[in-house]
Amino acid sequence: MESGARSFEYSTVSEWNDGKLRRRRDSLVGEEPLQIRIGKRPLSVTMRTPGDEFELAAGFLFSEGIIHSAKDIAKMGFGKKSAPDRNVVEVELRRRAPLNSTRLKRNFLANSSCGLCGKAYIDGCRMQGIKRPNPRFRLDPEILCRFPEALRSAQELFGRTGGLHAAALFEASGKLIAAREDVGRHNAVDKLIGWALLHGRIPLEDCALLASGRGGFEIIQKSLLAGVPVVASVSAASSLAVQLARECGLTLVGFLRGKRFVCYCGEERLGLETRPET
Amino acid sequence: MESGARSFEYSTVSEWNDGKLRRRRDSLVGEEPLQIRIGKRPLSVTMRTPGDEFELAAGFLFSEGIIHSAKDIAKMGFGKKSAPDRNVVEVELRRRAPLNSTRLKRNFLANSSCGLCGKAYIDGCRMQGIKRPNPRFRLDPEILCRFPEALRSAQELFGRTGGLHAAALFEASGKLIAAREDVGRHNAVDKLIGWALLHGRIPLEDCALLASGRGGFEIIQKSLLAGVPVVASVSAASSLAVQLARECGLTLVGFLRGKRFVCYCGEERLGLETRPET
Repeated sequence: MESGARSFEYSTVSEWNDGKLRRRRDSLVGEEPLQIRIGKRPLSVTMRTPGDEFELAAGFLFSEGIIHSAKDIAKMGFGKKSAPDRNVVEVELRRRAPLNSTRLKRNFLANSSCGLCGKAYIDGCRMQGIKRPNPRFRLDPEILCRFPEALRSAQELFGRTGGLHAAALFEASGKLIAAREDVGRHNAVDKLIGWALLHGRIPLEDCALLASGRGGFEIIQKSLLAGVPVVASVSAASSLAVQLARECGLTLVGFLRGKRFVCYCGEERLGLETRPET
Repeated sequence: MESGARSFEYSTVSEWNDGKLRRRRDSLVGEEPLQIRIGKRPLSVTMRTPGDEFELAAGFLFSEGIIHSAKDIAKMGFGKKSAPDRNVVEVELRRRAPLNSTRLKRNFLANSSCGLCGKAYIDGCRMQGIKRPNPRFRLDPEILCRFPEALRSAQELFGRTGGLHAAALFEASGKLIAAREDVGRHNAVDKLIGWALLHGRIPLEDCALLASGRGGFEIIQKSLLAGVPVVASVSAASSLAVQLARECGLTLVGFLRGKRFVCYCGEERLGLETRPET
């Protein structure tokens, strides 16, 4: 395998097409571990596509409730041995962060006194300080339907490798604000929210977020923390994602394909609650 | 939201189709946390689709290197408060398991003395005792191309909800041996491998594994640990997945769609190395 830019790598593959064989050069999406440290203390490792490491770290720390704004970060840099190591991000915080009391999953490992259920997870989100996102935000369904194509056009790596996730922020006008790609769905959203955080754009109260793949619980949780009022995905939403979106007043859209979608809750932001059924 | 079987839930949604609005009943794929405990000690929490909890726990423990065969499990049951809690699986092991030295990610949190890179992850896999999978296994490309349709036919929940991942094992004859579904790609593979483990079918040396979604590093790692010689996915493989598959002698296939696929390595098991290019 040749070594290219690290977000993708060239490789020779065998393509089989109805009995015909062809050897050709292909681009593989990059996947490498990233360790996030608070100071020198390791906090987490995630498999991710190289690129936008500081945004990924910032978004991850925000989603985990470890930081609440860009101001909580004193300094961010790559780890160093002899040379900077782009697989290690070291974050210095301005204040002592409550590292042991933040991550929902870890909370549940430590103390799930009332039993373990989706309801407890939703209560956990409320405890994280999630508020009802902007009730005045409105989005035209016709404009919403253009999001997937706009995201695909912005996906440079997908075009090259044919295989990775993406997330994007859109204005109500349909303008794409930012898009990020990664092998991991959650990483793509963390990079996007990290970008917003580092650019002083949180809460994202006048944006819609589009995620490739499914609308699962954690995507909704991350979006709510960032104040996003409308979340759409091209695939299905899960039961717990819908439950969380309903309880927190988010507009959740799934199966956004062509000129069709399903709205699970928050129809009023799309003007669907006043429209007669046809 | 009504309460149905827990692997899915009924919900009323708004469907928008080119300006036409319709309220209809929809099935949402279930998503709930599952906590896996060793005895009473919590080990991990994963968001999963309810169903096949013991298989998921067994597959997870096997992939993590905590157990090596079904014999290592003395007993498995649901946690109990007043009633059995299906979101908690308690596993009693026959021997003291090396809980602190197994999980790759945790290893890297604790000691990544040589820096953090994909190569170190691959070395970690070797340390887990991964061997070259069955070199005598052969699979006809024409039969391989039938796998995705056979898996889709077996996906009961996908048909109902339109949105979840799946993994399946196939014989070289094309016969589907087992299939499992989950909101999480890794969980679907863990459930499948857990099923094999509990049925005494590991190593899976005469099987091919098909996974929906991408062929990422962890899918390859889990398959190699279970001894699977051929892994196929309907989407792209990542750079690190291909590197691991090549180093360990696995046959890795991607973009398996219709009568076409890409083979990244291990062409000899598909008879492609002797076939002239066309």
